[in-house]
Amino acid sequence: MKDYKILGKSVARIDTPLKATGDALFTADIKLPRMLVGKVLHSPHAHAIIKNIDISKAEKLPGVRAVVTREDSFDVRWGVFKYTQDHQLIAVDKVRFVGEEVAAVAAEDEETAIKALDLIEVEYEILPAVFEADEAMADGAPLIHEDHPNNVNIHVNIDVGDVEKGFADSDYVREDRFSSSGETYGMLEPYTVIADYKAAGALEIFVPTASPHTKAKALSNLLKIPLNKVIVRRSNVGGALGGRSDIFPLDFITATLSRKAKRPVKASYTREESMTCTRQVHDMIVDVKTGVSKTGEILAQDIKVIMGGGGYSSTGPIAASVPFLVWEETYRLPNVRLNSYRVYTNKPIRGMYRCHGRAFLGGLGMQLDMIAHELGIDPVAIRLKNALQAGEFQATGSKIFGCGLSEAIKNAAEKSKWAKKRGKMAPGKGIGMGANGMMCGFPMGIRGGSSAIIKFNEDGYPTILTGVVDNGQGNYHAMVQICAEVLGLNIPDIHLVAADTEVTTLDMGAYSQAAVFVGGNAVKNAAEDARQQIFEIAAKILDCNADELAIEEGKIFRKNDKNSAIGLHKVIRKGLIDNTPVIGRGSYMPEVSRTREWVSNPKGQQAGTFSFGANVVEVDVDMDTGEVSVTKATGFHDCGFPINLKAVEGQYEGSIASGGLGSSLMEEHLWKNGRMLNPDFLEYKMPLAVDMPEISANVVITDDPKGPFGAKEAGLFGSMNSFQAIGNAVFDATGVWVKEFPITPDKVLKALAEKEKTVK
Amino acid sequence: MKDYKILGKSVARIDTPLKATGDALFTADIKLPRMLVGKVLHSPHAHAIIKNIDISKAEKLPGVRAVVTREDSFDVRWGVFKYTQDHQLIAVDKVRFVGEEVAAVAAEDEETAIKALDLIEVEYEILPAVFEADEAMADGAPLIHEDHPNNVNIHVNIDVGDVEKGFADSDYVREDRFSSSGETYGMLEPYTVIADYKAAGALEIFVPTASPHTKAKALSNLLKIPLNKVIVRRSNVGGALGGRSDIFPLDFITATLSRKAKRPVKASYTREESMTCTRQVHDMIVDVKTGVSKTGEILAQDIKVIMGGGGYSSTGPIAASVPFLVWEETYRLPNVRLNSYRVYTNKPIRGMYRCHGRAFLGGLGMQLDMIAHELGIDPVAIRLKNALQAGEFQATGSKIFGCGLSEAIKNAAEKSKWAKKRGKMAPGKGIGMGANGMMCGFPMGIRGGSSAIIKFNEDGYPTILTGVVDNGQGNYHAMVQICAEVLGLNIPDIHLVAADTEVTTLDMGAYSQAAVFVGGNAVKNAAEDARQQIFEIAAKILDCNADELAIEEGKIFRKNDKNSAIGLHKVIRKGLIDNTPVIGRGSYMPEVSRTREWVSNPKGQQAGTFSFGANVVEVDVDMDTGEVSVTKATGFHDCGFPINLKAVEGQYEGSIASGGLGSSLMEEHLWKNGRMLNPDFLEYKMPLAVDMPEISANVVITDDPKGPFGAKEAGLFGSMNSFQAIGNAVFDATGVWVKEFPITPDKVLKALAEKEKTVK
Repeated sequence: MKDYKILGKSVARIDTPLKATGDALFTADIKLPRMLVGKVLHSPHAHAIIKNIDISKAEKLPGVRAVVTREDSFDVRWGVFKYTQDHQLIAVDKVRFVGEEVAAVAAEDEETAIKALDLIEVEYEILPAVFEADEAMADGAPLIHEDHPNNVNIHVNIDVGDVEKGFADSDYVREDRFSSSGETYGMLEPYTVIADYKAAGALEIFVPTASPHTKAKALSNLLKIPLNKVIVRRSNVGGALGGRSDIFPLDFITATLSRKAKRPVKASYTREESMTCTRQVHDMIVDVKTGVSKTGEILAQDIKVIMGGGGYSSTGPIAASVPFLVWEETYRLPNVRLNSYRVYTNKPIRGMYRCHGRAFLGGLGMQLDMIAHELGIDPVAIRLKNALQAGEFQATGSKIFGCGLSEAIKNAAEKSKWAKKRGKMAPGKGIGMGANGMMCGFPMGIRGGSSAIIKFNEDGYPTILTGVVDNGQGNYHAMVQICAEVLGLNIPDIHLVAADTEVTTLDMGAYSQAAVFVGGNAVKNAAEDARQQIFEIAAKILDCNADELAIEEGKIFRKNDKNSAIGLHKVIRKGLIDNTPVIGRGSYMPEVSRTREWVSNPKGQQAGTFSFGANVVEVDVDMDTGEVSVTKATGFHDCGFPINLKAVEGQYEGSIASGGLGSSLMEEHLWKNGRMLNPDFLEYKMPLAVDMPEISANVVITDDPKGPFGAKEAGLFGSMNSFQAIGNAVFDATGVWVKEFPITPDKVLKALAEKEKTVK
Repeated sequence: MKDYKILGKSVARIDTPLKATGDALFTADIKLPRMLVGKVLHSPHAHAIIKNIDISKAEKLPGVRAVVTREDSFDVRWGVFKYTQDHQLIAVDKVRFVGEEVAAVAAEDEETAIKALDLIEVEYEILPAVFEADEAMADGAPLIHEDHPNNVNIHVNIDVGDVEKGFADSDYVREDRFSSSGETYGMLEPYTVIADYKAAGALEIFVPTASPHTKAKALSNLLKIPLNKVIVRRSNVGGALGGRSDIFPLDFITATLSRKAKRPVKASYTREESMTCTRQVHDMIVDVKTGVSKTGEILAQDIKVIMGGGGYSSTGPIAASVPFLVWEETYRLPNVRLNSYRVYTNKPIRGMYRCHGRAFLGGLGMQLDMIAHELGIDPVAIRLKNALQAGEFQATGSKIFGCGLSEAIKNAAEKSKWAKKRGKMAPGKGIGMGANGMMCGFPMGIRGGSSAIIKFNEDGYPTILTGVVDNGQGNYHAMVQICAEVLGLNIPDIHLVAADTEVTTLDMGAYSQAAVFVGGNAVKNAAEDARQQIFEIAAKILDCNADELAIEEGKIFRKNDKNSAIGLHKVIRKGLIDNTPVIGRGSYMPEVSRTREWVSNPKGQQAGTFSFGANVVEVDVDMDTGEVSVTKATGFHDCGFPINLKAVEGQYEGSIASGGLGSSLMEEHLWKNGRMLNPDFLEYKMPLAVDMPEISANVVITDDPKGPFGAKEAGLFGSMNSFQAIGNAVFDATGVWVKEFPITPDKVLKALAEKEKTVK
C-alpha cells in the first residue's frame, strides 16, 4: 500500500462525536418558528377511481392552515426518464396502491391535523386490482396505467453477440428459475420533511436525502423555481440503503402545504407510512439459461426478468438494469441476451436498493455453482476462468480499468481455507462463494458529477464546500482526508460543509457507494487548484517559481530548502491583501458514454470505473428446523485504495448484515389484497447484532487509475454477492438448492423433503 | 448618470418581501432542539471589588444546567488593539459599572434561570466611583484600571504643520467649548445570542451582528477555536447604527454556557439590559480654538476632546479618532492639532456610533458659522473656501479621489433657496447648513477587506456567497445588482447567501456604510472572474477567443454576431462536464496605508476613498417653550454613483431621523450614581414618524475611481452634519448659540434668557 500521510489508515471519523453525543440533528429534531404539522390522507384501496374529494369540512376546522389535494398537483409528473414520468405525487384521477397520497393537511398541531384528515371526504369507485408481476403482465389483467399494455412499465432489452450460436456451441446448457419476494429498506429513521416556502420565492427544505442536488433539481422542475432558490439542507440520514435517493410525494406535498399556508411545515411519516409510502424493493422472477464449454467457460446466457414495480415508475426503470450491469462487469459474456420487464402492479412503488437483485445476482451466481457441480469444476475455478481482467471490455462495451477480481477470489478462497472445507465439512455445515463488482459513477447526464469549493480563512485553515452526502459510509471523513493529503494539513485543521445545495453546483448524491470516487475526485481537484493558488502567492514571497514549492504541516517551502518555510496563514493573508483569495474550485464528471441508453440495447462506457470483490461465507443449517445461520464471512474487496481502511471494513460488515443475513435469509413483505401485513419492526424480520457472524474484512489494492488516490466504490460487493455465497453454502451444507429468496426455514425444509422424495 | 441596465434606478429590494411578511427570522425567533435559556447576573455597583462568588445553591436548583463566573473567564481580554485589551467579558477582580456581567446561568426555562440568579451570592467591597470624564481625569480621582493614570484609556495625538504659527498668522481667532451627553442607539431589537458549542469542537453562533467575520475572529481568539470552526450565522439585524459591530460579554458568556452545558443556549437581553450592557455613545467635551484669515480661510485649529468611555475600551479608542478623520477629509487644515482623550468612567461601555461626534462635528461646524458671522461671510461661502477638492491631500496625508463636496454645498444652497432665506426668515424660523464626508474602508489590518464567491447551477443561474451584512441599508440588494450588471442577468435570477462566516473568507462588516464600496468591489471582482470563466468555456463552443464574447440576458454571443447567441445554461453545463465549474472568486482590500497608526500621530492613507455631502435644514423654534422643530431638510450626497437610488435616498431620510432629530435635539442619558434612569423607550426620548420634516434627498454623481461602478459610502454625511446644520439654523432663528447637545428646550430658553440679559 502506498505510504500517504493521511490516507490508507484506520481512523475514527469526524462525524462520530456528533452522532455519539446526540448533537447530530435529524430532520425530526429541527424546529422552525411558526412551523405547522403536516399529515397525509392515504388511499385505503389498491385500485380505484377518485370520483370526488370534499375538503370543505376539513378547511373549516379551527387550527387547519392548509389542505392540499389533486387541485394543487400543478399537473406535475415525476419519473427519472422523460418517458417514465407517470407519477403526479398526489393522486389525481386514480389511486394505484393502498397508501397512495390523496390529500394532506397542515395544522397548528398534530391532533388537529389528524382530526382534519377524518373530515376529508373522498368518494372512490373501486376497480379490480392485480398484485403479482406475472399476473399483471398476462393478457386481460386490469390496466393500471391505461397507456401501458400488459402493464409493462419498462422493457430493458440487451442482445450482444449471437446467443443462439453460443448455445449451439456449448457443451452444457441449463435453465433455472429464481425468484424473490419484495422487501423493505428497514432504515431506523422514518421519513420526515420540513419545507419552508419563503415569501421571497425560495424553497428551503430539510430532508434525510442521499442526493440533495437531485432532490433540488426535481423540486425546481416540479415547482418551477430556479435551482439556486431550491435550498435542500443536509439533515443527517438515519439509514439510506438506496431508499433515500428518490423524490417522494411527501417532498412535494410538504412544499405545497407550506406554499399554501405561507408557513413552514413539518411532516413526519409513521413507521407504517414510511414502510409503505416511500419505497420498497422489487419482487422478481428470473429465468436464466446458460451454456458453457466443458471447461466451464460461459458461451451464452439468456436472462428473462419480471420485476413487480408497484403503482409508478420512480427509479424502478434503472433498477431493471443494474443487476445486469453488475453481472456484465464481473464475467466475460461473449453472447448474452437480457429481457427485463418492470411491470406495474397495485402495490406500493419499488425503487433502487443497495442489495437489489437477490434473485438475479443470487440466481446467476448459484447457477454458476450448479454448472461447476455438474461439470466437476471447483466453484472458485469456474469464477476465475470467467472473471474479467483489467483492460478487457464488458458485453455492452465498457472498459475495465483497475481490476482485482481474480486476486480477490483467490485471496478469499485461501484465507477462508476453501480448499480444505468445500465439500468436506460436517453435515449441515457448508461454505459458499460469491463474486461480483459494482459500478462507480453512472451515465446520469449532468447529474452524475460532483463539484467542490475549498476556501481558506486568514488563519490558514480551510473549509470544504461539497455536495457530497454521507449516509453513514464515512464519505465526509474521506473528503477531509483527501483535502488534507493534497494540502499537507491534518484532519482537525479542516472544516467541512457538505450536502447543502445552496453552496455547491452539483453532486450526484450517495448512490452506489460512489461518493468517494466522484465527490472525492472533485474535492481532490479543488484542493489541487487551491494548492496551485497557494504556490503562486508563496512564489512571490519566496522569490521563486510556483513549481519549486512544496507544502507540509501548514508550511510552504522551496523543495530544495526546508529552511525557507513560511506559514500557510501568511500566504493566505497576502492573497487576501492582493485580492487573490485562495478559493479552490473543482468538479468531476465520470468518463462515461453520454449517449448510452438505459433500456434499449445500451452501448458504450457504463461507468467511470468498476470495483470488485469476492466473499466466502460459512453456514450452519439446522437440518430439523431448516434454519440457516451464517457463522463466518471472509471478504476481499478491490476498492482501489482504502482512503480509510476502517470505513471500508465497516462497509463489508454492513453488507453482510443487510445483503447477507437480511436479504438472503429473512426479509420479505407479507401481503393481503395489496395491503402490507408487516410494515413495522415487530412483524418484519431483520437481522440483529446477535445474528452477526465472525467477519474477516480485507482489501485488494489496485490503485485505480481513475480514482482519487486510486480509490473507488467500497461496500456493495458484499451485499450483492452474499445472495449467491449463502445459496451456494446452503447447497454445500445440505445438497439442496433453494432458488427462492429469502432462504427461509420453510423453503429449506421443503427442498430437503423434495430431495428425500427424489432419492427414494 | 451613466446608463446601466440594472444600476442607478430606484428599485424595491430583495429583502423587502421577507421583512414585510414576517418570514425574516431574527435571532429571538430561532429555536434549536434542546436549547436552554441563558440569563445574566449584573453588578448592582458602579465600582467594587468582587470578594467572593458562591454558586453552590444555584447549581443545585433543579433545571439548572450550567453556571458560569470568573472561573470560566479563560483569562480572555477583549479590546480592538493589543494595548486596549482590558475587558475580561465576565467580571474577574472588580466590577466597573452598574450592569457589568458577573455570572450567568443556563437552565431549562426562563423562570428557573431567573430563580438561579437569585441564588448566586456575590460578596462585594464597594469602591468610590467616578462618572464624569473630566472628573475622572482629575488628579486624585479613583482609578478604574490601576495601570491607567488619570483614567486615560487612550490619548490620540495629532500635530500637523505649525499650529502656533498658524494662530500668529491669523486675522481672527476664537475659542469655544461644545459638549454632549451620552446617548443610546435605540435599535428596536434587544440583543440576543444563540450559541451551540458542538461535540465536534465547532461553535455555531446566531447573533444580530453587523460584522460576523469580526465576531468570528474574536471568538476564535478568545475561545481558541480555529476560525473555520467558528460559524457566525446571519440573523436579521433589528437596527445596528454602529452598535452591533462589537464583541459583547453576552457573546462570550452564551458560548461558555453552551460549552459547559453541552447544549445550545439562547440568551435574550431585556430592553434595559440591552441599553446598558451592550454599548452606549460617548459623552464628550470639545474645546476648539480656530484661527482664520480675514477671508475665512482656516489657518490653524487646536482641538481638545475629552470623551467619557465607561468601564472598558471596546471600540472606543477608534471612536476617539473618527470625528477628526471626518473633519480632516472635509476641510483644508494646514496647521492642526488634536488631543483626544478617551477616559475610563464608572459608566457602561461606550463604542462606535453612526452619529457620533455631535459635540465635535457639530461644534466645529457651528464655530465655522460663528466665524463667518463675525467676519460677515456667508456660511456657504466659508465652507466652499475651505472645502477640499479631488486630488488634494488631507492633513494627515490621505489623498482625495472623487470629490463632490463643493458641488453638494452649492446644490444644497440653491435647492433650499438659501440665499433668499438665510437671515431673512420670520422670527423663530431659521435655516442652517452642514457639510462633511465619510471614509470608505478603514485601515483595519486584514479585517478591512471582503471576499465573495459566485457559483453557477446547471440551469444558468448563480448564487453569490458573500460576507457582506445588511443592517437595513440595502447592501444585499446592491450585491445582487452589481452581480447582475456584470453578468448580464436580472435581479430575480440571482440567489444571495450573505453574512455567513462558514462560506466566505472575509468581510469587514457593515461599518461606516462602506459595505457597498468594499463588499461591492469584492462581488464585482468575483462576477468578473465568473464572466471570464464563462467566456473561456463559451469560446470553445462558439469557436472564437474569449475576448470576442459578450453576455446579455442569459445569453453569450460573439460581439459582432448576435445570432451566435447560446444560453448561459449550456455554457455552465459544458463547464461541469469538462470539470471547469464556473465558480468566480473575488476579494477587495481598500488601498490604505498598512502602517498608519490610530492614536499616535497617524500618517498615510486613512481610507479607500471618501464620500461627501451637504445638508440644509430649516427649523421652527417656539420662542415661548424653546422647542425646536425641523421643518425641512435638503441633502445632496456625493455617493459616487447610486447603485440603488431609492436606498441612497432612504439613507438620507434615516440620517435626518437619527442624527438630525434624535442626536441633535432630544436623545440623552439620565443618570443617578452610575445607574441609568431612562434605559427604556418610555423614558428615553427618540424621534417618531410624526416628527419628520419634509425631505429632499439628492445625489451628486462623481463616479468614484475606486468604487464598484463608481459607488461609495451613502448615508452617514446626513447624520454627522445635521448637528451643525441644526445648531446653525437655531442661531438663524433665534440669534443664540446652543453649544450643548442635545439642543433641548431648556437649553434654548436658557440661552435666550442670557441673550436678553446681555442685551439689557
